[in-house]
Amino acid sequence: MSRYDRHVFVCINERPKGHPKGCCLEKGSSEVRDAMKSLIHERGLKDRVRVNNAGCLDACAHGIALVIYPEGIWYGGVKKEDVQEIVDRTIVRGEVIERLVISDPTYAPSRRQFDPLEKP
Amino acid sequence: MSRYDRHVFVCINERPKGHPKGCCLEKGSSEVRDAMKSLIHERGLKDRVRVNNAGCLDACAHGIALVIYPEGIWYGGVKKEDVQEIVDRTIVRGEVIERLVISDPTYAPSRRQFDPLEKP
Repeated sequence: MSRYDRHVFVCINERPKGHPKGCCLEKGSSEVRDAMKSLIHERGLKDRVRVNNAGCLDACAHGIALVIYPEGIWYGGVKKEDVQEIVDRTIVRGEVIERLVISDPTYAPSRRQFDPLEKP
Repeated sequence: MSRYDRHVFVCINERPKGHPKGCCLEKGSSEVRDAMKSLIHERGLKDRVRVNNAGCLDACAHGIALVIYPEGIWYGGVKKEDVQEIVDRTIVRGEVIERLVISDPTYAPSRRQFDPLEKP
């Protein structure tokens, strides 16, 4: 077992205004991060799950982007409204949320279901 | 297979000077990151290995800290001089470098050997 059962990295890269690639920060990634951190604390999961800032994850076209390890689940187009579902379904239950998986097949997860945090 | 074969997150958190916890940035973590990124590019691995900035990894007492996923290998006390060995042994060959593993057992890797990037 590694230090955390799930380790989430949210891209908070910032580019100058008007940059053709855009950036996750201007799309609101810091709010996604804050909402996820709060919810992890509320659920009493802070010793098992960590949510971190990350620099550019090179998924700019798919921002707001985040990746969840050790499973390597890449989500794109994430909105603050998706955070509760990500926590409940992916982080706690180990399910992949298909609509959030980045459509480029190089980001496809290896499986559709992973170990839940608590075995039923 | 996830987007990257190895994804390295180097803590570049900065705290105010004199903060009792210290921080990885003042210990030189941005140089560690730069050296690792350069070497990954030189070795032609940039499509398979990514080195990212991370916010505080909550391993402040063990800084400079980094974590390598999907394996969840946590290294602490990393110096710029360790970067080449980390790339050659851990990133390419999948070996854990015991002297760099954070001594707190909660950071212990689940195994001592992981899949190499290239099968021999």
